[in-house]
Amino acid sequence: MPKKTTTYLRKVNFYETDAQGVVHHSNYFRYLEEARGFLLDKLGYPYFKMHESGFFVVLIEANIRIKHPLKYQDDFKIYTEIYTENSYSLCFNYAILLGEKMSAKAYTKHCILKDGKLTKIPNNIFSLIND
Amino acid sequence: MPKKTTTYLRKVNFYETDAQGVVHHSNYFRYLEEARGFLLDKLGYPYFKMHESGFFVVLIEANIRIKHPLKYQDDFKIYTEIYTENSYSLCFNYAILLGEKMSAKAYTKHCILKDGKLTKIPNNIFSLIND
Amino acid sequence: MPKKTTTYLRKVNFYETDAQGVVHHSNYFRYLEEARGFLLDKLGYPYFKMHESGFFVVLIEANIRIKHPLKYQDDFKIYTEIYTENSYSLCFNYAILLGEKMSAKAYTKHCILKDGKLTKIPNNIFSLIND
Amino acid sequence: MPKKTTTYLRKVNFYETDAQGVVHHSNYFRYLEEARGFLLDKLGYPYFKMHESGFFVVLIEANIRIKHPLKYQDDFKIYTEIYTENSYSLCFNYAILLGEKMSAKAYTKHCILKDGKLTKIPNNIFSLIND
Repeated sequence: MPKKTTTYLRKVNFYETDAQGVVHHSNYFRYLEEARGFLLDKLGYPYFKMHESGFFVVLIEANIRIKHPLKYQDDFKIYTEIYTENSYSLCFNYAILLGEKMSAKAYTKHCILKDGKLTKIPNNIFSLIND
Repeated sequence: MPKKTTTYLRKVNFYETDAQGVVHHSNYFRYLEEARGFLLDKLGYPYFKMHESGFFVVLIEANIRIKHPLKYQDDFKIYTEIYTENSYSLCFNYAILLGEKMSAKAYTKHCILKDGKLTKIPNNIFSLIND
Repeated sequence: MPKKTTTYLRKVNFYETDAQGVVHHSNYFRYLEEARGFLLDKLGYPYFKMHESGFFVVLIEANIRIKHPLKYQDDFKIYTEIYTENSYSLCFNYAILLGEKMSAKAYTKHCILKDGKLTKIPNNIFSLIND
Repeated sequence: MPKKTTTYLRKVNFYETDAQGVVHHSNYFRYLEEARGFLLDKLGYPYFKMHESGFFVVLIEANIRIKHPLKYQDDFKIYTEIYTENSYSLCFNYAILLGEKMSAKAYTKHCILKDGKLTKIPNNIFSLIND
C-alpha cells in the first residue's frame, strides 16, 4: 500500500529537558503528535476539519525506541508516514533524525470515534491515504 | 476576613525537573493547582461538584517568587489559603516549604463562569470561605 | 524468572487532561515513571542510590496500549513488575487499572550507563530482582 | 532605559490544551521561555553562549494575567521586551496577542548564577540590552 510522508522540523525547548540533561522521553510523544498534525495538514485533512465533521482521532497504541537522546536546542526532523492497517486503524511510522543520525523510531495506532462510538475511517480520508 | 487553610504534601517527580537539575518553574503552577484542589476538597466543595452545578473556575492571574528551587525527590509542602477579594474574585495564597525553608511564595486569582459568562461566586461557596 | 511487583496508587490531576476531556497519552509515560520509582523504592534500591553509585538508568524503549482513557480525578492503580531480559536490559511491565477495568497495558526497557558508557546491571540490583 | 524587543510566532499544540478546552495556564510560562530564548538569540547572546561562559539564568519571579485563553491551533504572537532593573535583575515583559486581541500580559524576573553564586549581569549582556 502506498504511504504518504512528510518531514517535520523542530527545535528542542529547554522545558522539554530533564535533570539527565536530555529530552524527557514523554516529550517525544508530544513531538510525534505535532508531526502527525503536520502530515494531516499537508494531506489536506487537518484535525479541526475532522472535528467539524464529528470525527475524533484517538490514540490506542504508541511505541518508541530511543537510540540517541535529543538535547536542548537540537534541531531535529521527524520523517512521518501514514497508512491504514485496515478500515478501522490509522497508523503512523516515525523516524526522528538528528542530522544523519537516527535519534528514535516510533509508531502510533489510532482509531476514530463518532458520537463516542468506534467508526470506520471516513472514505475521503481513507482515499487520501491510499490513492 | 477569615481564611480557610490547608497543608498539602507532595514529592518531586523526575519528569518535573529540567536540565538545570531543578523543578522547571512552569511545574510549580501545576503543584499549586493540586494544592487548590486539595483545599476545595477539604472545604467540602471539590471541583467536580462545581462542574456538576455548571460552574467553571478559571484562572485569570498567577504569580510566583521562587527562592530555593526544588530538586528531584524533594518532599515539600504547600500551605494554601483561600479568600474572596470581592463577590467575583476567588483568590489563593501559597507558601511552598521544603522543611523549614521557604522554597516559593505564590498567589492565584480566579473568576467563575456559568454558561460561558462571568458570574458571582455561588453563595454556598462564598459562605464556606467567609464563615 | 521471578518478577518483583508493586501496586502504585494515583489520582489524575486536571493539568494532565487534554481538550478531548481525557488524560493526554504522553502523561501515561509519566505515570509509569512514578510507578517504576515506587517499585525500586520498595525493592530497597531507589534511583538516588543508583545515582550515588554513578549508575544512570536510561529508557530505550516504551510501549503502551490504551483501552479506556483515564479522566480527571480518576483514582487508578498501576500494577508493575520488574525483570531482567539479560544482563544489560532492565524491563518493566505495567497494567493501569481503573477499578476492575483495564485502562492500559505498557512496558518499558532500560539500559544502565556508568560514566556515559553502557554497563551491565549492577550485581546487587540484578540479585534483588532475580532472587 | 531603552528596551530591546522581538515578536515571536507560535501555534498552540493539542497536548498544551486541557479539559476546559483551552491552553492550560502552566503552558503560558513555557511559551514565555521560548519567546525569551528567541529574543536572546536575536540580541546575539543565546542561552548556550551564556552557558559556555559559565552563566546560568535563573527565573526568580513570574506573573501572568490571562484575559482571553488560547485554544487548540490558535496562531498567536508574543511581543517581548528585555530590560535590566539593576545590575543583578534581568527582566522581561510580554504581551501575548491573538490577532489584535490581547490574550495575556506577563513579566518574568531572572538572576544570574556563576559557580552557583549570584553574580552581576555580565557587562557585554548589560551593554547589549542598554545601548
